[in-house]
Amino acid sequence: MRQVAIAGIGQTSVDEHWDKAIRDLAVEAILAALMDAGRQNAEALFVGNMMSGIIDHQNNLGALIADWAGLRSAEAVKIEAACGSGAAALRAGLIAVASGEVDSALVVGVEKMTDQSGHDITAALATAADADWEVDHGVSFVGLNAMIMRRYMYEYGWKHADFAPFSINAHANALHNPFARLHQAITVEDFEKAPMVATPINLLDASPTGDGAAAVLLLPAEKVTGGKRPRTLIAGSASVTDTISVHSRRDPLFLKAAYESAKKAYAQAGIGPEDIDLFELHDAFSIMSALSLEACGFAERGQGPRLGLDGETAIGGRIPCVTRGGLKARGHPVGATGIYQIVEVVQQLRGECGPTQVEGAKIGMAQNIGGAGATIVTHIITAD
Amino acid sequence: MRQVAIAGIGQTSVDEHWDKAIRDLAVEAILAALMDAGRQNAEALFVGNMMSGIIDHQNNLGALIADWAGLRSAEAVKIEAACGSGAAALRAGLIAVASGEVDSALVVGVEKMTDQSGHDITAALATAADADWEVDHGVSFVGLNAMIMRRYMYEYGWKHADFAPFSINAHANALHNPFARLHQAITVEDFEKAPMVATPINLLDASPTGDGAAAVLLLPAEKVTGGKRPRTLIAGSASVTDTISVHSRRDPLFLKAAYESAKKAYAQAGIGPEDIDLFELHDAFSIMSALSLEACGFAERGQGPRLGLDGETAIGGRIPCVTRGGLKARGHPVGATGIYQIVEVVQQLRGECGPTQVEGAKIGMAQNIGGAGATIVTHIITAD
Repeated sequence: MRQVAIAGIGQTSVDEHWDKAIRDLAVEAILAALMDAGRQNAEALFVGNMMSGIIDHQNNLGALIADWAGLRSAEAVKIEAACGSGAAALRAGLIAVASGEVDSALVVGVEKMTDQSGHDITAALATAADADWEVDHGVSFVGLNAMIMRRYMYEYGWKHADFAPFSINAHANALHNPFARLHQAITVEDFEKAPMVATPINLLDASPTGDGAAAVLLLPAEKVTGGKRPRTLIAGSASVTDTISVHSRRDPLFLKAAYESAKKAYAQAGIGPEDIDLFELHDAFSIMSALSLEACGFAERGQGPRLGLDGETAIGGRIPCVTRGGLKARGHPVGATGIYQIVEVVQQLRGECGPTQVEGAKIGMAQNIGGAGATIVTHIITAD
Repeated sequence: MRQVAIAGIGQTSVDEHWDKAIRDLAVEAILAALMDAGRQNAEALFVGNMMSGIIDHQNNLGALIADWAGLRSAEAVKIEAACGSGAAALRAGLIAVASGEVDSALVVGVEKMTDQSGHDITAALATAADADWEVDHGVSFVGLNAMIMRRYMYEYGWKHADFAPFSINAHANALHNPFARLHQAITVEDFEKAPMVATPINLLDASPTGDGAAAVLLLPAEKVTGGKRPRTLIAGSASVTDTISVHSRRDPLFLKAAYESAKKAYAQAGIGPEDIDLFELHDAFSIMSALSLEACGFAERGQGPRLGLDGETAIGGRIPCVTRGGLKARGHPVGATGIYQIVEVVQQLRGECGPTQVEGAKIGMAQNIGGAGATIVTHIITAD
């Protein structure tokens, strides 16, 4: 298999884009990625998206976006793995290029969520969980995460405020990301007083939805010359599933699929967690930050919040996380998130992150989660 | 890239499976495919499905079905390309195995459609077309095909009854397929008197929906010994897109994406249309049979119906089509159809088709279409 480079990146802001259709958002990100790479075309297009069928009344999204982007005759499909759709699409593009099946592939993650009522979006997001055995019994997606968080706090003795550093860090970093949904610093007091969503998850534990698209252009590494900026290569990529229902897991406080996919990705890259310079983790809810850090080898079981409290997840800490704002503050347009994470890792490896630059970053990891830990896709990107 | 064999096949009947959830259907087909191959597991699962988010309120279908099938930790995603989802998923599985990324992959196509009202299904099927520029103007998916058929009849001088042989052949072949939705022979009189759906498409031009799932197990060819039956190998595979809107095409009567994907698949297999022993084409509507035969090199432009009238598409003819009933009579559970076609080609190459066996069949082609010609995926399967 050939080594694959991320030759171009593009993104729209995460926002309420009432004037743009889903295809407009996707094409804006695609054209930005092509321009960034100095290319005009690609052979194949992989679209990461979760809910276009429900929200936009639009399937066949591969053909739709290829058409609108002017990618005549390109192979194009949509990949869906709930909120992990973006990274799942990246893997499809990666395998297509690495194998030699195609010599160039665009991967775009896109979601348009803000034209709908909160009720409709809550129902659409719940399609990430088990419709028959979770959702039909009345639990929403945030409700599932709330039960996990409550149990975690009980088992390990953490209080709600102990999760504040994760959200504070995300908001602080997003201040310097022009594409972020929220540009607003928060304090522990803000965090503790935010309106409750599903106890113990309040508004500042939870990531905001939004409309957005992010894209990358993948090329065989040998076709890419770094020029003034370092080449960014995909050094590890793995996708693993766990049971879709949280209640089916032997231990609902352990992200087994995160552990296994990170382990595979580390092995592929020939590194361990100690070598990771930054980690774009899937902080859909603050509890997920803790569980991801633990499953990926950055903290002992039950000790994830300690990393936040000790400042280790902030810029300058041991494992800087969500350096551009993460899901919490950059925003979480669900099917697009996995590609935003990759774009942000590349920005770090290129040294383009200004006040939130991780000095000397050479190895970044991104982890994208579909469902409450059901589908977990881990990528490791390196600069050479 | 390694050569890939279809080592196992499985399917459910296409029917109104009111007692089975989408996961039950998928797992029934998966277990049948594993049993057929004498295997118990696979590393990865690719699910072809179009509308589970809309109809079943269920996304994250990869994780859901992997979980229910007992494929612990398997990589699993859903691939969507409207009614071409099945074959698009097969391509994802093929590339994963051919590249060496995995050593075994299950591909299942599944759709559950009959729990919904006809109105809801019509709306869900229309998500295959352009929501903003076709559907919002009031046209349904059958309406788009009706406009194509009407224009075709006008341009080339065919009358409605000239399309009857395609449907008569499909129904005749389905009589011998226990998995088919319809077991009912039809005549030209039946065809001409059927209730109108969207002029000139009537009920016997159109394929019935249904619930169903079909699955294949893919292995590297060198791992498969034929035993008593021939090995079946994927010799050609190509996916091409055209504009999603029919009105954007230079020539709406030519399936450009079918032409291009068939051309690529022929080149990969080192053959031409004259070498194909049977063709499982995408007869969602009778007009699509004519257009597919023309685009794939079996008939001159505008002359597709001639092949039907001359008996060439029946068993024993020059290019036997829809030998197990096709979309028209086996039924069209949309995201599953592309895998049913592959299963049926394998049955022919194994010589398991009884009265509808194509004698000495060695090379079969399957073509799966998403939207009104927007995404077209062609596969060529050979027996060695």
